[in-house]
Amino acid sequence: MLFADNDRMETTLDPQDWEEFRKQAHRMLDDMIGYVEHVRDRPVWQPIPEETRANFRESLAQRPMSLSRVHEIFMHDVLPYTVGNVHPGFMGWVHGGGTPVGMVAEMLAAGLNANLGGRDQMPIEVEKQVTAWVREIFGFPETASGLFLTGTSMANYVALLVARRAFLGTDVRKKGIRDHRLCAYASRSAHGSIAQAFDLAGMGTDTLKFVPVNEKFEMDVEVLAEMIRKDRESGLSPFFVAATAGTVDTGAIDNLEKIAEIAEAEGLWFHVDGALGALAMLAPEIAPRLNGIELADSIAFDFHKWGQVPYDAGFILVREGELHRSTFAAHEPYLMREGKALAAGSPWPCDFGPDLSRGFRALKTWFTIKVYGAERLGQAISGTCELARYLESRILEEPELELLAPVSLNIVCFGYREGDNAEIAAGIQESGIAAPSTTMVKDKLAIRAAIVNHRTAREDIDALVDAVVAFGNSLSRGENGE
Amino acid sequence: MLFADNDRMETTLDPQDWEEFRKQAHRMLDDMIGYVEHVRDRPVWQPIPEETRANFRESLAQRPMSLSRVHEIFMHDVLPYTVGNVHPGFMGWVHGGGTPVGMVAEMLAAGLNANLGGRDQMPIEVEKQVTAWVREIFGFPETASGLFLTGTSMANYVALLVARRAFLGTDVRKKGIRDHRLCAYASRSAHGSIAQAFDLAGMGTDTLKFVPVNEKFEMDVEVLAEMIRKDRESGLSPFFVAATAGTVDTGAIDNLEKIAEIAEAEGLWFHVDGALGALAMLAPEIAPRLNGIELADSIAFDFHKWGQVPYDAGFILVREGELHRSTFAAHEPYLMREGKALAAGSPWPCDFGPDLSRGFRALKTWFTIKVYGAERLGQAISGTCELARYLESRILEEPELELLAPVSLNIVCFGYREGDNAEIAAGIQESGIAAPSTTMVKDKLAIRAAIVNHRTAREDIDALVDAVVAFGNSLSRGENGE
Repeated sequence: MLFADNDRMETTLDPQDWEEFRKQAHRMLDDMIGYVEHVRDRPVWQPIPEETRANFRESLAQRPMSLSRVHEIFMHDVLPYTVGNVHPGFMGWVHGGGTPVGMVAEMLAAGLNANLGGRDQMPIEVEKQVTAWVREIFGFPETASGLFLTGTSMANYVALLVARRAFLGTDVRKKGIRDHRLCAYASRSAHGSIAQAFDLAGMGTDTLKFVPVNEKFEMDVEVLAEMIRKDRESGLSPFFVAATAGTVDTGAIDNLEKIAEIAEAEGLWFHVDGALGALAMLAPEIAPRLNGIELADSIAFDFHKWGQVPYDAGFILVREGELHRSTFAAHEPYLMREGKALAAGSPWPCDFGPDLSRGFRALKTWFTIKVYGAERLGQAISGTCELARYLESRILEEPELELLAPVSLNIVCFGYREGDNAEIAAGIQESGIAAPSTTMVKDKLAIRAAIVNHRTAREDIDALVDAVVAFGNSLSRGENGE
Repeated sequence: MLFADNDRMETTLDPQDWEEFRKQAHRMLDDMIGYVEHVRDRPVWQPIPEETRANFRESLAQRPMSLSRVHEIFMHDVLPYTVGNVHPGFMGWVHGGGTPVGMVAEMLAAGLNANLGGRDQMPIEVEKQVTAWVREIFGFPETASGLFLTGTSMANYVALLVARRAFLGTDVRKKGIRDHRLCAYASRSAHGSIAQAFDLAGMGTDTLKFVPVNEKFEMDVEVLAEMIRKDRESGLSPFFVAATAGTVDTGAIDNLEKIAEIAEAEGLWFHVDGALGALAMLAPEIAPRLNGIELADSIAFDFHKWGQVPYDAGFILVREGELHRSTFAAHEPYLMREGKALAAGSPWPCDFGPDLSRGFRALKTWFTIKVYGAERLGQAISGTCELARYLESRILEEPELELLAPVSLNIVCFGYREGDNAEIAAGIQESGIAAPSTTMVKDKLAIRAAIVNHRTAREDIDALVDAVVAFGNSLSRGENGE
């Protein structure tokens, strides 16, 4: 006989003993809540011991291992050696802090195991609900479409594809980008993912022209207008401009109203890379600085940064939903739509982006927005900007320190005068006290504090400043033996 | 004074009362474990009541709502109305069933809130560990590189970009695809994401030529060789062939050895789309049918299908890691690498793909492989193929039913003779008994059962067959009043 009577038990991966599993799962949840609750007692970051790293160079095991043992390995070898962005002392790059609410919501999503590619299911209604809120936040019309993606790198790319389809027609999907004389614009301070989008789309990064920035690191809009004029004269076809709402290096916000005006006059697609800054719309005292964002053709941003949703949760909003759909929709027999039952509900999210398998990023975002409400999320955002101003004031008070860029939002670039800032940043990271990152500002290597985490408080700013001064002094006295 | 002394409490999104949060979180975990444990007692799928849908058309709330209330809404309005792929009766499209282990692992990942874009952190070592296992599974060399992505749609696209860079050099990243006479091949049964990749990459879908299939729905390799010859004669540059290990419609496996041989002789990039079938390498009695996969230049597949990892967890494996890296790596000042501390550990995952913000997909995959071991995962895969053969035998026994394609792996295409199979499939879905999908096989609409879930057992197959016969009989007697 081909099948034993007890065939169900032979292949299922469900626990044989649900009670035992349940106990273990609760231990895991307790440990993880404890981690978040007491994260301040830990170093922000610590070096990975070589033997820990070596433990993760095993060959594939054929045999099972108990969940409790695997969890022990996780607690011992993985949890202590993360980047540290849950910790209030983390100010490197631009990482959100996450929340316990996002954590449990993600557990629910993993249990449901929903694929948000399509089909008629409430998880897609949850994504549509979040999309409606996003439209509301940015003052977009009902006909605007939205989609979760991994992050703004993908969202910028999706926006470029929609702009390409708008400019070249749907035929480009069949024929590709040929003999093109297209050109596009972003500021010198734009994120690398804008140029990457042109690489990924087969247009080549040379298609993107960089507009100089003013002393506040904002796009020089007069030069932009001049560049467009000259490029047209030389036979190129300008079609796309990406403004930045919160540049990665300094947090500068381009003049969105003026860029919108130029884009409108010149017939360019107006995209806003708001990875860092767009959600400042939730903070009433910062929102006016984003004036003009409501005129964008597309906006890319991340809920996992200022939105504090756990990684990853990027988002693209497109003004003309139908244009967006016709950039990606295809007709495959195995994805046939029907008027009723499971295959109803067309269009599906897979018609609006490259992903057919898509996790339920919307749930952790929906929980975050429902539980905290827009107001508290906005206060957390304002709070990080206030802390950046506090850090600025502390830097200006310390004679050994210098401010290296204007503080526009929540990012502060500074340094120890005449010091080796790379060495200082690495030393502070290794100390576990704080975790700034570094960048180049006007050919100078700067220590960069991006304050994104809702847990960060004045004491963390003080600890960073004190550490920079102490490490700087110690290095300049040659105590580090370099 | 700008900052109150108790500023920490003003903006943090952490619970004021951790004990209360902890209790609520445990309730949520219990509910979710209960859902998975008792999923068999639920309908596979059920229609969404209009009032439930309407509840998700609220405007953005400014004020908070308690986590327990938001969870209640989730339990009442979302959880009962999913696609149903956790349920053993779900056989639509190709969806994995998930596991409770994957669920709790994802909760840990969300608590850590790791961004796997880069930096020196153990989560990246976990991803490297899984990559090493993947290399081992497919017999790839140490120099091969791997990366988690959302799904195979993205993985196929990444593979195409690496192939493009291999054929055209790194200059293509700057200059784009211009005046190209490239051409590429996949079978008529290939997944739509292969053609989509050519659209996304700016080459246009016309670049992809479809090779006819034989009676087993496998690529006709003699025609492939002939097409390449003719295309070269007409001045085109063939550079890429995508074989399929498990086609979406029928589960057919292309002749990988023969395609590898042709690709080698003709200097083509040999890609395998193994979204559905690649992990059959874990099942010793099926693995030999994938012979030749070890010769691929790149393999794309999903852990969230046969691997039973919760959504989403796609993967790309590339034989030449350095080629892969040089397709994506860039030099940005804010992503500077250092020899020590947080910015060490280069190259980073962001150097191998389009994502800079990347969640910790590796953790749920690592937990799944560690806890179950390769052998049990392979048995679960074998089990679904055995069930497909059982379904085939049941269809052949029923005079009203006809088999519409050979059963190659875990997918069965069949129908009610002279019946409206779309109507039958929708009726069964609405009944909640089972959830097959539909597709076109040789111009005939087929009911398609893709058996992917480790929970599915013979009783679920019997229920599907009985339901198709019953709905078919009832419809042909005109009882449904259509």
